[in-house]
Amino acid sequence: MNIKITGTGSYIPQGVEKNEDFYSHEFLNADGSIINHPNEVIIDKFQAITGIQERRYIKSELLNSDIAFYAAEKAIVDAKIDKETLDYIIVAHNYGDVKHNSDQSDTVPSIASRVKHLLQIKNPKCVGYDLLFGCPGWIEGVIQANAFIKAGIAKRCLVIGSETLSRVIDKHDRDSMIYSDGAGAAVIEQTTDDGGIIAHESATFALDEAHFIYFGETNHPEVISQRKYIKMYGRKIYEFALNNVPLALKACLEKSVYTIKDVKKILIHQANEKMDEAIVKRFYKLHDMQMPEGVMPMTINKLGNSSVATVPTLYDMILKGELENQEINKGDIIIFASVGAGMNINAIVYKH
Amino acid sequence: MNIKITGTGSYIPQGVEKNEDFYSHEFLNADGSIINHPNEVIIDKFQAITGIQERRYIKSELLNSDIAFYAAEKAIVDAKIDKETLDYIIVAHNYGDVKHNSDQSDTVPSIASRVKHLLQIKNPKCVGYDLLFGCPGWIEGVIQANAFIKAGIAKRCLVIGSETLSRVIDKHDRDSMIYSDGAGAAVIEQTTDDGGIIAHESATFALDEAHFIYFGETNHPEVISQRKYIKMYGRKIYEFALNNVPLALKACLEKSVYTIKDVKKILIHQANEKMDEAIVKRFYKLHDMQMPEGVMPMTINKLGNSSVATVPTLYDMILKGELENQEINKGDIIIFASVGAGMNINAIVYKH
Repeated sequence: MNIKITGTGSYIPQGVEKNEDFYSHEFLNADGSIINHPNEVIIDKFQAITGIQERRYIKSELLNSDIAFYAAEKAIVDAKIDKETLDYIIVAHNYGDVKHNSDQSDTVPSIASRVKHLLQIKNPKCVGYDLLFGCPGWIEGVIQANAFIKAGIAKRCLVIGSETLSRVIDKHDRDSMIYSDGAGAAVIEQTTDDGGIIAHESATFALDEAHFIYFGETNHPEVISQRKYIKMYGRKIYEFALNNVPLALKACLEKSVYTIKDVKKILIHQANEKMDEAIVKRFYKLHDMQMPEGVMPMTINKLGNSSVATVPTLYDMILKGELENQEINKGDIIIFASVGAGMNINAIVYKH
Repeated sequence: MNIKITGTGSYIPQGVEKNEDFYSHEFLNADGSIINHPNEVIIDKFQAITGIQERRYIKSELLNSDIAFYAAEKAIVDAKIDKETLDYIIVAHNYGDVKHNSDQSDTVPSIASRVKHLLQIKNPKCVGYDLLFGCPGWIEGVIQANAFIKAGIAKRCLVIGSETLSRVIDKHDRDSMIYSDGAGAAVIEQTTDDGGIIAHESATFALDEAHFIYFGETNHPEVISQRKYIKMYGRKIYEFALNNVPLALKACLEKSVYTIKDVKKILIHQANEKMDEAIVKRFYKLHDMQMPEGVMPMTINKLGNSSVATVPTLYDMILKGELENQEINKGDIIIFASVGAGMNINAIVYKH
């Protein structure tokens, strides 16, 4: 028995927020002090590091569970399955449903229950739950689905990664330009087809790293509010990721029967272009190799960092021929990889 | 190989909130209209139905992750294990960390990462994630741990149920008297010892039932605020639970090698005394039996409904001899069962 992804879908929000749209923002340092550069300079530097030119925000009337549902619908159609045969709906996210102009996360009922409701699935044996694991949540959901199938308690699972970071950003923080909204979904099932999930690796670094990404107050010192926003220690995360993600990828690959020369694509969480490149370059360096051209497809320039959604969205876009000069063919060995809040790292070696 | 709970721990908050403490509250109907009874009558009726005389609230300086950690520490000591050997930390909750006097749920990093940090576990291979599944979250976590062990990706897991409902209640809603705070934890591991997890059952009813428990505004019509609180349609939940939970228990028992006469205890989510009794009575009625005396140990009268925490707390208290006239002995067949937001139902047949 093999366990494979048999269908994918994604939802790319229609609202395009360009870098120029941030020109009028009042960016401040974390301590509230003024940044001694005009916004054009701040934003040029931001773009040079992160690769982000624009990002996507959902419309004000939509919720995270709505876009999770849109992606799920497409994955179910793509997999050509009867939705009533799903054993699990696993939704990875980190902030639940946050309404436009609200500061409260709504997670009751779970986003999985909401998606199941929107899908109008009747079968009560289709169990829906939410998984919180930082940005690596979607990959972790695939690992959990794989475990459920191996353990004999499921045959077919829907794993969704959906996030609306536009609802939790501090507009006085330069890092707010990183974050985006999006949803990606995949149907995972047991199959007699060749390939599928070959090996995986997961880790949680919480001793010193637990609070590298956190919920914190605005950078604006004159705003009297306890309202919290997504915040991060970028430099610490960069160093942490560079030290640990290449080793996790290597460990994952070594668990499989494949070598680095077999790897056709690395689909890495779209966190920051420079960081992602440095990670993948170091992964190849660990094997005394140069990073091959085109091995690391990127969407961050147009789609930003949509947390749990980046990897399934990227995968779906390649399969659907929506990413220039990128393709994945039957039998290709690919690696899914992510790093994010927790700090969590994970990877899957997958034969398409 | 069997999979058993080898250690338990719980944290019962010190703050006792008695029914009398609600005498001065201004309770209103959901539509904002006045309830035509004095509070003493409302509260007497509440107590007659729910069985709740008092509930527990955590101190203002504590968070949900703190009490999850306290329960976890005890379970690790009770299991006599090295904390560095844990493969998973699974934390079931529904509202994350909500600070005193705040309305925001904080779930980044995950509560599991926070607990791992507080436990000072170094091993990065100990993977921490949060599971949102309504009140049945802790039982679902045990089912997931069981699957990971069966699938060969874990040997030892820590499953915590922790919730601070005192931080999300509308004081103008009579139902606010139901909710309580608490945390329970268990170490689950593979063992050569007899017994353990025999069978389980999970279900999500989301077609008509998804929003029976939800996040809604205060009952007070003059309070101009979008702030949301835990809310429920009590009558609908009662009917739903009575129609579906006894059947789920029956289905779970039929998956095992045991019959209803083997069942020594049913540890059911402490939702509402009258509802719990009606469920268990109907379960026995489905087998043409009367509910035996003492089969359903209860803590709700003193501890209220602490969501995901009720079942592990109840189990821990019985094992530690803290519940009068209740004991569980080696070889006893017990059923863990829960129902809650989602609407989710689950059950485990377990040989102690």
